[in-house]
Amino acid sequence: MPKKVDHDVRRHEIVDAFLRVTARDGYAAATSRAVAQELGVATGALWHYFSGFDAVIDAAMDAVVARTNRRITSTADGLRGLAAVDAIVTEMLPLTKETRDEAHVVVGFWGRLSARGAAAPDWAADDDWVAALRRHLGEAVQLGELRSDADPARLTTLLEAVFWGRQVVEVIASEPVDAADHRAAAETALQPWITRATTGDLPERARLSPRRG
Amino acid sequence: MPKKVDHDVRRHEIVDAFLRVTARDGYAAATSRAVAQELGVATGALWHYFSGFDAVIDAAMDAVVARTNRRITSTADGLRGLAAVDAIVTEMLPLTKETRDEAHVVVGFWGRLSARGAAAPDWAADDDWVAALRRHLGEAVQLGELRSDADPARLTTLLEAVFWGRQVVEVIASEPVDAADHRAAAETALQPWITRATTGDLPERARLSPRRG
Repeated sequence: MPKKVDHDVRRHEIVDAFLRVTARDGYAAATSRAVAQELGVATGALWHYFSGFDAVIDAAMDAVVARTNRRITSTADGLRGLAAVDAIVTEMLPLTKETRDEAHVVVGFWGRLSARGAAAPDWAADDDWVAALRRHLGEAVQLGELRSDADPARLTTLLEAVFWGRQVVEVIASEPVDAADHRAAAETALQPWITRATTGDLPERARLSPRRG
Repeated sequence: MPKKVDHDVRRHEIVDAFLRVTARDGYAAATSRAVAQELGVATGALWHYFSGFDAVIDAAMDAVVARTNRRITSTADGLRGLAAVDAIVTEMLPLTKETRDEAHVVVGFWGRLSARGAAAPDWAADDDWVAALRRHLGEAVQLGELRSDADPARLTTLLEAVFWGRQVVEVIASEPVDAADHRAAAETALQPWITRATTGDLPERARLSPRRG
């Protein structure tokens, strides 16, 4: 029993080291060698806990998804309708150092998945944030913040594509991308559905809710 | 002089072999070894023409972008407004065997780009289809097919994110994705802007134009 616990602890430490090196030195620098060095062990020691570097990246992706879901649960807590939608958009787009680093982990993961010819692990099927986004879009319709003919399911699918697409833009752009440009894509998706009641005089660039910080 | 020509021809042959193996056996199977075997040469022979497998994939990505732009030029030829937009959407989304295979090349390329910590080569800055999409969205506004307050630049950015996002969905989905589901994301982005004049009774799922074939 304690052995199993140690094993899990060690795996967590390796994933944390991978994400720490990514945050500090960039995704390209987060090789198995750099992760081992970060932990002060030989590279070979990693392979007692993971079948290979693909498995480390799979676990890092899981950790990023879990982290994102935790952040969303925390920031959307107590919010309803568009304010909650805005909280989810803010966590899903690559707007901060943390979420920009995560975009590299996520896009790198997709690339390896494609190269392996494998489908995504099960987490993709039941992301908490997808259900939360759909629920809060439904609330926004009920609250009259979105037009009554807005379809929460279709808008969720559209926003999901926008989140993935903007993570790609973040990673492939030849110059740093303004956070405002990432937000603009999500706002363009929602703007035509936002009612005049919500936005007052409907500014040129619709806002989902007042900006924080 | 002839030497330079031979060199370019050989590079083209290698890229073609890579894309052929991808189309036949899947992206995961398109290794340097499989590409060399397809050409009947030793793997080492590839490295006279490319600095490594990353360079082969860069060139394959260039070829896919050029191919996509050629297809768009051809299918949108003579079309205006939403009909031309629909032609571009049809070529950019992973709807056919060809464009689904290309999604794997594209997503694999992004993943490697992320892992290398490199920005995308210059092609990303001046994609022909981006300019064409924006122009045709502007025509659609002028023709009264889209609302007069639709912003072609913002809709182009939104659709670009949708194209990238749906290529990701194609690659990471655990089950084959219906072409109709890919189209639906693009249609959701445009649907609120489409005028009643264009769509007659505005069907539940707005169509950009009548389906072909």
